[in-house]
Amino acid sequence: MADLIRDSFTLPGESGYEELTLRLAKKWGADVIRDSDGTQLSDEIINSGYGIYSTICLIRSVNAWAKKNMDKLQQNFLMSNPVTAESDVVEIDPIKGYFTQQFMVNTFDDAKEFWQVFDRTSGEEVALSDWDFNKETGIVTVRNAKKYHNYTVNFLAIRLWEEISMYNHITNDWGDKEHLMAVEPMCPETQEEILRWLEEWCETHPATTVVRFTSMFYNFAWFWSDDSKKRDVLSDWGSYDFTANPIALRAFEAEKGYKMTSEDFINAGKYNQTQNAPTKKYREWMDFINRFVIDFGKKCIDMVHKYGKKAYVFYDDSWIGVEPNGERFTEFGFDGLIKCVFSGFEARLCANAEVETHELRLHPYLFPTGLSGEPTFAPGGNPKLDAQKFWQNVRRALLRKPVDRIGMGGYLHLVEPFPDFCDYIEKVTDEFRLLKTFHEAGAPYEIPGKVMILTAWGSLRAWTCSGHLHEHPEVDLINIIESLSGLPFDVEFKSFDDIKKEGIGKDVKVIINAGVLNSAWSGGDNWKDAEVTAILTEWVAGGGGFIGVNEPSATDFSTQFFQMSHVLGVDKDLGTKKCLGKYNYDVKAKHFITAQNDIIELPACDGVFVLDGSVDVLAEVDGKPAVTAHDYKNGRGIYMSGYRFSLMNTRLLMRAILYAAKAEADMEKFICDNPLTECAYYPGSKKLVIINNTGDVQKANVTTPDGVVTATIDPYDIYIN
Amino acid sequence: MADLIRDSFTLPGESGYEELTLRLAKKWGADVIRDSDGTQLSDEIINSGYGIYSTICLIRSVNAWAKKNMDKLQQNFLMSNPVTAESDVVEIDPIKGYFTQQFMVNTFDDAKEFWQVFDRTSGEEVALSDWDFNKETGIVTVRNAKKYHNYTVNFLAIRLWEEISMYNHITNDWGDKEHLMAVEPMCPETQEEILRWLEEWCETHPATTVVRFTSMFYNFAWFWSDDSKKRDVLSDWGSYDFTANPIALRAFEAEKGYKMTSEDFINAGKYNQTQNAPTKKYREWMDFINRFVIDFGKKCIDMVHKYGKKAYVFYDDSWIGVEPNGERFTEFGFDGLIKCVFSGFEARLCANAEVETHELRLHPYLFPTGLSGEPTFAPGGNPKLDAQKFWQNVRRALLRKPVDRIGMGGYLHLVEPFPDFCDYIEKVTDEFRLLKTFHEAGAPYEIPGKVMILTAWGSLRAWTCSGHLHEHPEVDLINIIESLSGLPFDVEFKSFDDIKKEGIGKDVKVIINAGVLNSAWSGGDNWKDAEVTAILTEWVAGGGGFIGVNEPSATDFSTQFFQMSHVLGVDKDLGTKKCLGKYNYDVKAKHFITAQNDIIELPACDGVFVLDGSVDVLAEVDGKPAVTAHDYKNGRGIYMSGYRFSLMNTRLLMRAILYAAKAEADMEKFICDNPLTECAYYPGSKKLVIINNTGDVQKANVTTPDGVVTATIDPYDIYIN
Repeated sequence: MADLIRDSFTLPGESGYEELTLRLAKKWGADVIRDSDGTQLSDEIINSGYGIYSTICLIRSVNAWAKKNMDKLQQNFLMSNPVTAESDVVEIDPIKGYFTQQFMVNTFDDAKEFWQVFDRTSGEEVALSDWDFNKETGIVTVRNAKKYHNYTVNFLAIRLWEEISMYNHITNDWGDKEHLMAVEPMCPETQEEILRWLEEWCETHPATTVVRFTSMFYNFAWFWSDDSKKRDVLSDWGSYDFTANPIALRAFEAEKGYKMTSEDFINAGKYNQTQNAPTKKYREWMDFINRFVIDFGKKCIDMVHKYGKKAYVFYDDSWIGVEPNGERFTEFGFDGLIKCVFSGFEARLCANAEVETHELRLHPYLFPTGLSGEPTFAPGGNPKLDAQKFWQNVRRALLRKPVDRIGMGGYLHLVEPFPDFCDYIEKVTDEFRLLKTFHEAGAPYEIPGKVMILTAWGSLRAWTCSGHLHEHPEVDLINIIESLSGLPFDVEFKSFDDIKKEGIGKDVKVIINAGVLNSAWSGGDNWKDAEVTAILTEWVAGGGGFIGVNEPSATDFSTQFFQMSHVLGVDKDLGTKKCLGKYNYDVKAKHFITAQNDIIELPACDGVFVLDGSVDVLAEVDGKPAVTAHDYKNGRGIYMSGYRFSLMNTRLLMRAILYAAKAEADMEKFICDNPLTECAYYPGSKKLVIINNTGDVQKANVTTPDGVVTATIDPYDIYIN
Repeated sequence: MADLIRDSFTLPGESGYEELTLRLAKKWGADVIRDSDGTQLSDEIINSGYGIYSTICLIRSVNAWAKKNMDKLQQNFLMSNPVTAESDVVEIDPIKGYFTQQFMVNTFDDAKEFWQVFDRTSGEEVALSDWDFNKETGIVTVRNAKKYHNYTVNFLAIRLWEEISMYNHITNDWGDKEHLMAVEPMCPETQEEILRWLEEWCETHPATTVVRFTSMFYNFAWFWSDDSKKRDVLSDWGSYDFTANPIALRAFEAEKGYKMTSEDFINAGKYNQTQNAPTKKYREWMDFINRFVIDFGKKCIDMVHKYGKKAYVFYDDSWIGVEPNGERFTEFGFDGLIKCVFSGFEARLCANAEVETHELRLHPYLFPTGLSGEPTFAPGGNPKLDAQKFWQNVRRALLRKPVDRIGMGGYLHLVEPFPDFCDYIEKVTDEFRLLKTFHEAGAPYEIPGKVMILTAWGSLRAWTCSGHLHEHPEVDLINIIESLSGLPFDVEFKSFDDIKKEGIGKDVKVIINAGVLNSAWSGGDNWKDAEVTAILTEWVAGGGGFIGVNEPSATDFSTQFFQMSHVLGVDKDLGTKKCLGKYNYDVKAKHFITAQNDIIELPACDGVFVLDGSVDVLAEVDGKPAVTAHDYKNGRGIYMSGYRFSLMNTRLLMRAILYAAKAEADMEKFICDNPLTECAYYPGSKKLVIINNTGDVQKANVTTPDGVVTATIDPYDIYIN
């Protein structure tokens, strides 16, 4: 083994396949072997001299105790389905329509302390004295109801089945295998039990070098209904809905002097989706929970450290309160962060966190089928091609910012019929280690100045929106971030509060605001704050570049819909300006921004109109302005009607950023002329790396201060000069 | 002439073409000859024994007097373009950007009595003490401005050019022909002058039998900018914007005890577009103006009557306050109403008014070019085909409700090169007179029960939305009304106030609510009124049928966006319910509503989702529910994602109405089986009339109580049994 590079790779081992495990560990240069959900490591593997990662999930680890302490399970607020009053009395069965293997009504606590009943026709709350909950029948009775109004109950539900376990159980048809439950860690007895279990676990796992937490205590929100044709009632990768419970609610009120009501969570049935701009009160609740997750999380991590093991967090599933780019993340004391990656932005999310070891879990996982049920390691699958596509996404991000390790997960034996996959992973691991060495000699060349992404969340959700790109591909910002993940820009993520508190940094050249009305990404009601608009207007007037995408700065307020319409030179008619004349523009055929995009493939935005002749319309889609440019005093406003990640759109975005920054000349330095390729130059190691992002041979020219470098690169390959 | 039918037709005569005038008068069976804008009638024509219509437009008839009384011209409020404050002082030139041949700033009245200045970034009004208007320079200076906020001025502008005259002048390049001005009839001196002029006119036009008013005093709102690429700032066929002036504003305040502010008209730059749901205060202003228009209008009509002439109103252009289906229309004392018609709904609008004589002015007008500049009576034109298409629209409406007369307008000599047109008009006039005879023996068979169109305007805008169908073809309701104009339903138009005051009539079987958010047609904030939702819910629960189109009952309020979503079974996600699960429906292939529509050609509505499995999705467009049906207690809710007029969609709508009404059996009585044909049965005259609405031969079967009638009908032709 001495002649092999042997580091930075984590291999999923599998008991019963010891020979395969050790052979692939050598081939792929592993230095660590891990177990996975559903696999175990034999003594032979454990004792083979590799580092050992072991996965644990604290909240579902004490199921026997959980069964005896049903009042200490995790809870959340649910809204009942509406019931129409046909007389002045309405009866509502709150749980009706929900998946009762997941939820039961909380009958332990006094309903009137936490629940609320609403007339959803008038929007008004029903007085506490006008309703009662019968614990025996499970029915809420509303009195003095208004005829033909619809009533709902906000109630606390106890969760009977930890959601990831539930999903795997049902999807894989695990039959009568025990249902795992999630215990509520706010409860002191639960904390005792978890710490007791963890200590015992550490005692009994001496070979484990790294304990991999999955992740901490609260899963993202995932409510199921009892109707298989509408399985999800709510599915939100960033929501704090599962953190509501009597202990936390009372503690919050005791600390703040005001209470979170059920309606603060239910929010007229919309809940508090990560995609939507949050209220100040909800941000306070998140902050409160985040502090708890860190406080108790730290106790668990300290325990692991006491046993001489490292503590890594796998950032997925029960990740609420663990946000790696949140302000307090370092307080956990984690030694490493592991992130599974489909996309470049996920690699940047990981790389951006302040932690010693950054590790990526590559896709495809070694499972028979992929996320959408398509075959991967099964007949009909082509896992090598899958791996190429995902690596192509991730590699361009790794050119910009390094991580420390990569690895895989799943059932190792599944790779046996796919030798081309095994060879390809060998190539990937070598490519990864090579790129890492370049970074070791210093960061790659970046275009001077910063690009700020302005959202309601700011750095809390740096390099992410909510969930994966394939789940909400219609979210413009996640597509933009994916493009940016491989571009030579220094990107920062700021909230509206940030710019009000700190102003806009001197080094910021371009601000991007992208999203639809009321989304967290566009900003929602933050745009009703004149201070925000004035700060940004002054900044653009002074020479800044503002790029707005889809419904930037949108809120139905005052004369304009886009509050930055005077800067962008475009606004949008929601249908209430039908009779107002719209400027009859011509499309400007030649422009710096669109110079490399003969065809513009962006989503159209209905109702967008140009204010006047000072605006250059650079492209149309469906007869509507799709890309516009507008000089505003000393700065520039750029509008794009939408954004989807593609190599050609990435080029369009890069040029738009450079134009907004009045930095057009930067296109001529360390940028591939061919948009289907990208490059990075590492001044420390004096290396120029060019990558081919396509399945075809590509030629690329890169202008450097020492002349033009020309390369011809095989499909998905890499060129180094 | 004794052997010719000679009635019910108004011919535009033309001096210098006496022979042609009298020849076509005979051919088309005219009993009346009229002048047109730009034509005169010679004594030979006047004395040829025909009735004589003469057109007058009171407000632009006294131009010499107007020039001497510039303070008595009509006015309106305008909003200046926004100006960004770069220090604490901002200077704004209010008129900048407007067409200064149309507008000048009112310097006669005290600006501070009527104007307002707004910070449009914060949405707040600037204190009167913080701004001044300098009459000499024309500049408004704002002090204590907030840096980088945008400011606008609401100001009173005097109008220098009557808009219809301005449009004709500029379009036809009339050079230095005098600009006609619109005088303000609220001013007592103006009233005196108008009455003086009218009396003189009556004295000097003894041969005139009918005085045709065009129309009364206030034109629809039409603001022009100084930029030819954005000619219209506002163009709204129903807006009362031109009725604002100091006299009226002061009189309103004196009567009501509260004032209309400039912002009540400007409305954050949106003005009060007819397409948008009006506020209560603006409706009060309209009512106030309507009373004035009738009061002074009646004096003018009385004058005409005093001279033994009839007074007809041509309902177009200066029609504000003249709405023929308004509550007070009969108080004018008009003898006739003339409406020019492109569409069936316009014929129904005319037919629906309570007045002695209903007359239609057919298109195409005898002009060289049509409305979009395309040739009509010019080389390349095909006026016969144009006439066929318009007549096809109008005829189906006349099958349902009769009018008394038809006629034409324009330059008669233009028809000479088009003998096929002349022959076709002869056929049309004969067809018209024949249809009229059928109605004389009693109304045609209608399907029992009423269809109610529920809008914010109610009967004030019965059988219209705003303007012509071709101007806003995206307005669902105008398309629906066009379909209904030829269908065998009894249609009524009600407002939200109506149903709150009167409830829903016992004979109403189906209610249609159609339009987009905040439109007058959908209803806007009326849907925040729980009483409205409860009344309608109870009515459907009791057996009514509710048809919602596009964004029916929409307002962003409480848990639902469509306030009638519980009835419709569908709702719409504005983007803030992205993470809420949506029901995964199947499309139901066979259903009564879609039985004759293999292909559904309706606009899709983004974000519409189905609530649960109780909803039948009958058709999709672009993967979104396009037609759905839902049983709600004893009634039915039908949703359509949009509506455009076509023969096939008319059939879809008819079937949807019958299904909503649980009157499916009515499809089998006096309905053509072929949707490209339509019929009417007149029990009084025992005549069945079938029309072919296409340019191809059609076959139709009609089931009657006496058996099936089968007809084969030539293109655009009519069959009578």
